[in-house]
Amino acid sequence: MSAVDTKELSGLELLRWVQSERPAGFPAIQQLFGLTFETVDPGRMVVSVATRPEFGNTMGTVHGGVLATLLDTAMSCAVHTTLPAGVGYTTLEIKVNYVRAAHTDGRLLTTEGVVVHAGRRTATAEGRVTDAEGRLIAHASTTCLILDKAS
Amino acid sequence: MSAVDTKELSGLELLRWVQSERPAGFPAIQQLFGLTFETVDPGRMVVSVATRPEFGNTMGTVHGGVLATLLDTAMSCAVHTTLPAGVGYTTLEIKVNYVRAAHTDGRLLTTEGVVVHAGRRTATAEGRVTDAEGRLIAHASTTCLILDKAS
Amino acid sequence: MSAVDTKELSGLELLRWVQSERPAGFPAIQQLFGLTFETVDPGRMVVSVATRPEFGNTMGTVHGGVLATLLDTAMSCAVHTTLPAGVGYTTLEIKVNYVRAAHTDGRLLTTEGVVVHAGRRTATAEGRVTDAEGRLIAHASTTCLILDKAS
Amino acid sequence: MSAVDTKELSGLELLRWVQSERPAGFPAIQQLFGLTFETVDPGRMVVSVATRPEFGNTMGTVHGGVLATLLDTAMSCAVHTTLPAGVGYTTLEIKVNYVRAAHTDGRLLTTEGVVVHAGRRTATAEGRVTDAEGRLIAHASTTCLILDKAS
Repeated sequence: MSAVDTKELSGLELLRWVQSERPAGFPAIQQLFGLTFETVDPGRMVVSVATRPEFGNTMGTVHGGVLATLLDTAMSCAVHTTLPAGVGYTTLEIKVNYVRAAHTDGRLLTTEGVVVHAGRRTATAEGRVTDAEGRLIAHASTTCLILDKAS
Repeated sequence: MSAVDTKELSGLELLRWVQSERPAGFPAIQQLFGLTFETVDPGRMVVSVATRPEFGNTMGTVHGGVLATLLDTAMSCAVHTTLPAGVGYTTLEIKVNYVRAAHTDGRLLTTEGVVVHAGRRTATAEGRVTDAEGRLIAHASTTCLILDKAS
Repeated sequence: MSAVDTKELSGLELLRWVQSERPAGFPAIQQLFGLTFETVDPGRMVVSVATRPEFGNTMGTVHGGVLATLLDTAMSCAVHTTLPAGVGYTTLEIKVNYVRAAHTDGRLLTTEGVVVHAGRRTATAEGRVTDAEGRLIAHASTTCLILDKAS
Repeated sequence: MSAVDTKELSGLELLRWVQSERPAGFPAIQQLFGLTFETVDPGRMVVSVATRPEFGNTMGTVHGGVLATLLDTAMSCAVHTTLPAGVGYTTLEIKVNYVRAAHTDGRLLTTEGVVVHAGRRTATAEGRVTDAEGRLIAHASTTCLILDKAS
């Protein structure tokens, strides 16, 4: 997708490259939702999205699946920032607590993912979604399986 | 949005009306993902979606947030089918276990949500996503808070 | 702890040996709670316990941690029944939904754990606790990491 | 159980009374495990336990159910500290991530529970178990339903 060989990049390098280059259609989900990588730090990732009417559930507030998508992205990318080149991961599970309804009127939702445990075989992370007024919308935790070259 | 007064409908009637009438833009999230309500039964809901490349994560397989959206929809609608007219609900939490990667090549994903506990104040449900070959992709559980008129 | 070399046993053989021989102090937790292995089948485990006043929380009903112990035992042992000799496992996460209070008056709680996904590197299971009248008390899911010899 | 009318106490007052008076057999579970209330602050609770061989699973490390008991206690009591007299609660769900095995050799495990969201109808909290060396053993989240007098 570019002159950069993404397979040679560590997780941190790859995600910072995505942040700065914004390669079209990578990852694909980013286009569907319009996610922006705000911060890519070792063990920490901040992702934002402008809400849209299409994010609405039957009550007209942001669907829980959209919040789960934000949290899954921020938390799994936070784990990815800790991995060297050639080491992949897969998400085993995610749990989301929804604490307040979010509006679909265009205001920004900001999601932070932070690594809690970075082990050899698994990693865990926690995440939080806040609205433009700084109110907590949802919080979450996840487990990722680390896939090293030999696996 | 039609001559039907949706506030007069029970959850089961409302979701069957959505299933048969497919009202444009309701719920909004249905349009974003292209969800189809396959089955709307008391305490049970089946939702399907044709996968698309835009559902892809950095590995090119279906993003966990898309699977969470399917599961949240099927499970919370299953709870909704048990509620009389005028009684709402909100999702308190969802947990998803991802057991197999799903492709983004257009094949159908089918998601079933089934009520496990229907109480006066809360309800729980479980859900499963299977691919076109019947393989399990993800399974989940959720808690909903029942919001009666007096709340 | 006996003439049996438990390292030579598959998970199913080991748990059936525990069920029939009831070796003192193995596993230790069994003594603290008084668990009984009712059924040990491939991919399925049933554990029961007679409730005791010491299981009580501040409300005088069975503490959520006791129910989590029952569910963790039944679900992780169900995973263990699928593993050959020499292959271990560790529990990565458990989530429990509490749907009804249980009394501490000596009546039996029965917990069933069933494997949902048995993979090469991970396995998932679900579980349910029911009381003596067959009412659902709690349900749960878990992820285990499979630890093969080479890990 | 004393001249104190515990029904007149707020959650914070009740738990501080338990902390200072250590009333025999209240809550009952405290006796089974030997829990100590280290800190009772508004929205925050620290509970410790000296590990014992009876806490062991089949691998000889602390059983996940024991860690879930510690986390459930610390998190739900943290929620309880936010409630006025006459308002109860019940735990709807708990999810625990296990990140490191803990020994059963008598060393202390310390568990902190902190309220994340304190709403009118529900509250959420997070918790962490650390060992005597300060290493993270497990982390968790929970949802509680608030039961006011009118419920």
